[in-house]
Amino acid sequence: MRRIYLDHMSATPTDPRVVEAMLPFFTENFGSPSSHLHENGLKAKKAVDESRANVASLIQAKPDEIIFTSTGSEANNLALRGIALANKAKGKHIIISEVEHFSILYTARELEKEGFKVTYLKVDKDGLVNPQDVARAITEETALVSIMHANNEIGVIEPIKEIGRITREKGIIFHTDAVATTGIIPVNVSELGVDALSMASQPFYGPKGIAALYLREDVDIVSIMSGGAQEGGRRPGTDNVPGIVGMGKAAEIARNEMQSRIEHLTPLRDKIIEGLPKRVKYLHFTGHLTKRLPGHASFWISFAEGETLVLLLNYSGIATASGSACSSPDLQASHVLTAIGVPPDVCHGSITVSLGKDNTEEDVDYFLDTLPKVVERCWQMSPLYEDELKKEQQA
Amino acid sequence: MRRIYLDHMSATPTDPRVVEAMLPFFTENFGSPSSHLHENGLKAKKAVDESRANVASLIQAKPDEIIFTSTGSEANNLALRGIALANKAKGKHIIISEVEHFSILYTARELEKEGFKVTYLKVDKDGLVNPQDVARAITEETALVSIMHANNEIGVIEPIKEIGRITREKGIIFHTDAVATTGIIPVNVSELGVDALSMASQPFYGPKGIAALYLREDVDIVSIMSGGAQEGGRRPGTDNVPGIVGMGKAAEIARNEMQSRIEHLTPLRDKIIEGLPKRVKYLHFTGHLTKRLPGHASFWISFAEGETLVLLLNYSGIATASGSACSSPDLQASHVLTAIGVPPDVCHGSITVSLGKDNTEEDVDYFLDTLPKVVERCWQMSPLYEDELKKEQQA
Repeated sequence: MRRIYLDHMSATPTDPRVVEAMLPFFTENFGSPSSHLHENGLKAKKAVDESRANVASLIQAKPDEIIFTSTGSEANNLALRGIALANKAKGKHIIISEVEHFSILYTARELEKEGFKVTYLKVDKDGLVNPQDVARAITEETALVSIMHANNEIGVIEPIKEIGRITREKGIIFHTDAVATTGIIPVNVSELGVDALSMASQPFYGPKGIAALYLREDVDIVSIMSGGAQEGGRRPGTDNVPGIVGMGKAAEIARNEMQSRIEHLTPLRDKIIEGLPKRVKYLHFTGHLTKRLPGHASFWISFAEGETLVLLLNYSGIATASGSACSSPDLQASHVLTAIGVPPDVCHGSITVSLGKDNTEEDVDYFLDTLPKVVERCWQMSPLYEDELKKEQQA
Repeated sequence: MRRIYLDHMSATPTDPRVVEAMLPFFTENFGSPSSHLHENGLKAKKAVDESRANVASLIQAKPDEIIFTSTGSEANNLALRGIALANKAKGKHIIISEVEHFSILYTARELEKEGFKVTYLKVDKDGLVNPQDVARAITEETALVSIMHANNEIGVIEPIKEIGRITREKGIIFHTDAVATTGIIPVNVSELGVDALSMASQPFYGPKGIAALYLREDVDIVSIMSGGAQEGGRRPGTDNVPGIVGMGKAAEIARNEMQSRIEHLTPLRDKIIEGLPKRVKYLHFTGHLTKRLPGHASFWISFAEGETLVLLLNYSGIATASGSACSSPDLQASHVLTAIGVPPDVCHGSITVSLGKDNTEEDVDYFLDTLPKVVERCWQMSPLYEDELKKEQQA
């Protein structure tokens, strides 16, 4: 059976050029960069330095401003906790949005237990934070604002530049979780006006297990782990050299191919967004329809449970996601959908379709043809749908 | 020039069979295990489950007792902080040794700042902890003991089994940092009597960037990072699937080949230990001479600075290490050497030679032939050596 992968927000294939770049660092140049007194370590150090420069260049930062971590979640933990703790003399108030990733949201909740005050900004029905809400929430005590660049679940791109203008003017440290955007759309830390930015390698076809925090050189941070002197003492542990090399190569490729990828993905996304309502009744999009990631469409369908849809789509050869990708095992109603006003009883019902660079128009057509059949089967299982049909017939 | 790698404590080459096992999980089976509602995610989940079982089997644990982390340092941070915080109702006293890895030592210091009391046990001149010292240090308040299985810098293997008998009897949680031993010598968590154990993939020829904490199923822990539900909610972030697969394959191979590797490495180590004093004057071994890792020799040489020796050995094609591998950039006198009574002014002077499975007797012979020449050149640069020579001539 034909298999179509439309779940790039959860995981992407590593670019074969990236794998090729990594391979020598497993078996030949396997040294540790900390062992730079000998040839083997020195080769590893050079490769890590080069990758750091490539990653920095992707977001227009300086190499020393890149701290490699293992995951985007770790980068988010380090950013929120590390900056909050290092700057608590400035104040113990943090501002985040209600739609942040769990690694920000739950870290904020932990900090609350430790005496910090957190403001959770609401978003509008499209999932957008209002920059003026940020301005209004800032107090004398505010030390840190953290608003995500794009939401993985509903695809919406937040007005980071506008928020950055406000935080810069008020002298407040601004972090953005850009895991869903870095390497996918242009991310320039100066233009965005951010002081810290989380990114991960995987979304731009780098390997899993490697990510980074950009931290502007004059921003203080404390480490969330203790140990050796790696990453300027900000993140201990033996460097994941093949991973770092892979992320650097993926960053280099992303910089070169980003524009063409965007030009490829945006029309495909729009074809889905235009095509779906014509084919499926009771379909409700989530997230702003144009201020969104190039390959991202998300929606829910009345009387059709999201996980069932994902399962049935899988039987038809299509991989998609329901709810927030990173947390699906917990089966809680999505906090993101709740925040944009989707009724709690349908919050399990959402579908995220995320295209990647190798998806084709045929993939999109197959998805558009398949979904209505799958939805029909879902509806046939739903007593609520039956009720609705009767109501409509009576009307 | 011939190049001989004798720095396996810092980094090892990944076994080609491990790389081969990992490869499909970059480009083909690239899904995320959390996305187990579709085929791509399910394949990844199965592979992670299989690897978890292989890693567990290496130390005779249950699969659910394995928490994958990014590094041994992270596993140590999670163990010490996570267990201490989750069990503080039992008491806020922790016992560690003076020769622990920085990721234990500095985490303990952080916990002290947060109100915990830490006892730092001394070691004898061979680097050994006395189990009776552990027994004597235990109070009503003691919740956790953490003693490393083997020290990376001086190679000594600690009496974990004896300590485990004491902690078990007194009902105290016992963690061991077994990064330097797991996959290298037999490690059986029940026999050792440990409740938690840190390990890393790299020391047994798995990839960098992946490690694990074994945690006995009835021991409480709190996560040191916040986020998604991965690893049973104990370690958030997208799974490093290729890394986990690599660690699983490396564990499987280590289990099968451990005995022959030990039989290969021990005589090579002993050849070094027997051969060196005959060739190099003023040579002082560090760490117990027989209770030590199979491929590990460590020593310091009067009037010869360690980093200079490593550099000169490198020019002769030999990679070795000076001081603690993970922290060499900080250039502080080694806390391990200080703890075993090496005078502080020579604490930069130590050399660690760590053999790997692919080293040969020829490698050892070349090292034994080369070191005396290199030491001679070091001495020629040392005014202290000149003084010593004069003293000897006068005597």
